[in-house]
Amino acid sequence: MHCLTLTPRFYETDAFGHINNTVVAGWFETGRATVFELFAEADKPAVMPLILARIEVDFVGQIYYGAEVEIRTRVGELGNSSFEVLQEAWQKGALVARGRAVQVHFDHATQRSAPLSDDKRRLLEGLR
Amino acid sequence: MHCLTLTPRFYETDAFGHINNTVVAGWFETGRATVFELFAEADKPAVMPLILARIEVDFVGQIYYGAEVEIRTRVGELGNSSFEVLQEAWQKGALVARGRAVQVHFDHATQRSAPLSDDKRRLLEGLR
Amino acid sequence: MHCLTLTPRFYETDAFGHINNTVVAGWFETGRATVFELFAEADKPAVMPLILARIEVDFVGQIYYGAEVEIRTRVGELGNSSFEVLQEAWQKGALVARGRAVQVHFDHATQRSAPLSDDKRRLLEGLR
Amino acid sequence: MHCLTLTPRFYETDAFGHINNTVVAGWFETGRATVFELFAEADKPAVMPLILARIEVDFVGQIYYGAEVEIRTRVGELGNSSFEVLQEAWQKGALVARGRAVQVHFDHATQRSAPLSDDKRRLLEGLR
Repeated sequence: MHCLTLTPRFYETDAFGHINNTVVAGWFETGRATVFELFAEADKPAVMPLILARIEVDFVGQIYYGAEVEIRTRVGELGNSSFEVLQEAWQKGALVARGRAVQVHFDHATQRSAPLSDDKRRLLEGLR
Repeated sequence: MHCLTLTPRFYETDAFGHINNTVVAGWFETGRATVFELFAEADKPAVMPLILARIEVDFVGQIYYGAEVEIRTRVGELGNSSFEVLQEAWQKGALVARGRAVQVHFDHATQRSAPLSDDKRRLLEGLR
Repeated sequence: MHCLTLTPRFYETDAFGHINNTVVAGWFETGRATVFELFAEADKPAVMPLILARIEVDFVGQIYYGAEVEIRTRVGELGNSSFEVLQEAWQKGALVARGRAVQVHFDHATQRSAPLSDDKRRLLEGLR
Repeated sequence: MHCLTLTPRFYETDAFGHINNTVVAGWFETGRATVFELFAEADKPAVMPLILARIEVDFVGQIYYGAEVEIRTRVGELGNSSFEVLQEAWQKGALVARGRAVQVHFDHATQRSAPLSDDKRRLLEGLR
């Protein structure tokens, strides 16, 4: 599992006085950077062999401005050419949001999904 | 069904050269404004009796800068105190993303979910 | 002069209940798309020969959710290799923000500023 | 002077492959939180007696994904009812952006600017 601590930003609030829901999708992407790093080729961010197929976010509690948020990220099920990333956001000791992302290993040359090598599988298992 | 046409903004792109995935969560919120209007009390945006419980987004195709996007929004299943909003994003005649949101009717005074009145149910059914 | 009409989005509000100030920088970038189009080479957004050197925004009045905003964009002073873009945001008949951007014509091959051709100057003068 | 370290987020990049310019306005707002804290009344973010009158940003160098950014914030000139905030963004030892914000001390009850008390002036001088 990987933990990232974020400080909510004022522009991330909305007129309801809390952090806007859509911001959480961005925070979870930021938490998944730890996964992207396993696939990134040095200095070629534009060709990373991963595609995001699906996200799900459950909003469990209000998220407030003025207190840190911890984003916990771990790898869930591993498929042949795709995998699941499971995430949680915690604030002041409470779970405030839960996320799930499905990432597909993708070959940009052939424009098709590509099996995960044993090497990549081992790296992903390290994030369980 | 409600249709909203958006022009992708340059700052919504990312280093992969397309619209960033997390932006779509914001576009779908914008499309749901047509639902929020059914519940808003004039000039009191901060007390709207709706809470977002869950979002799901399926990323079906790349979304490009330079061509309009149509956000289609309709109400799905109606529960006792919650309802489903089903959304699609279309660009250049192709479906590029699909979304589902679960909105809960919420009483801020009691901090609990509240049954949907017949009046609100009729309004929601008008968006099917 | 070029006019663009935007509908403020809910996630663009902040806890003060209005549109967040930092959003206006994004709206003005969106208004400048009319300038970018004069320089864009077809399907090569990543190599547009323009760099943003400076922005200024004066926040003249509150910007509200729930009413359209018009972004007015025109070219100001033309220098040898740079030019000024002057912008205004209007809502409900009132000026709410004023912006100024300095764009530099840039040669990515040499990594230096490049003089504006007579052709480009004529195009820019058409946006006065 | 106050220093804040930020990690650029992937969704903050744009199709040019770097951090989008408009993001910097948000980062500088985040850096100014150290100023907002001097004026905030506990648990009343919605009534902070400050209004942003103007921002200026000079984009000095490209800002890259993948390396931390330090936002340096200090108070500049103090007027009767307003003050200047001077900011810099540094990445990999290089100045990449410079900002200036004009904040007005504002009385929401009378809807007018209000003189800075000696107490607030001392606090602001502590951020020079």
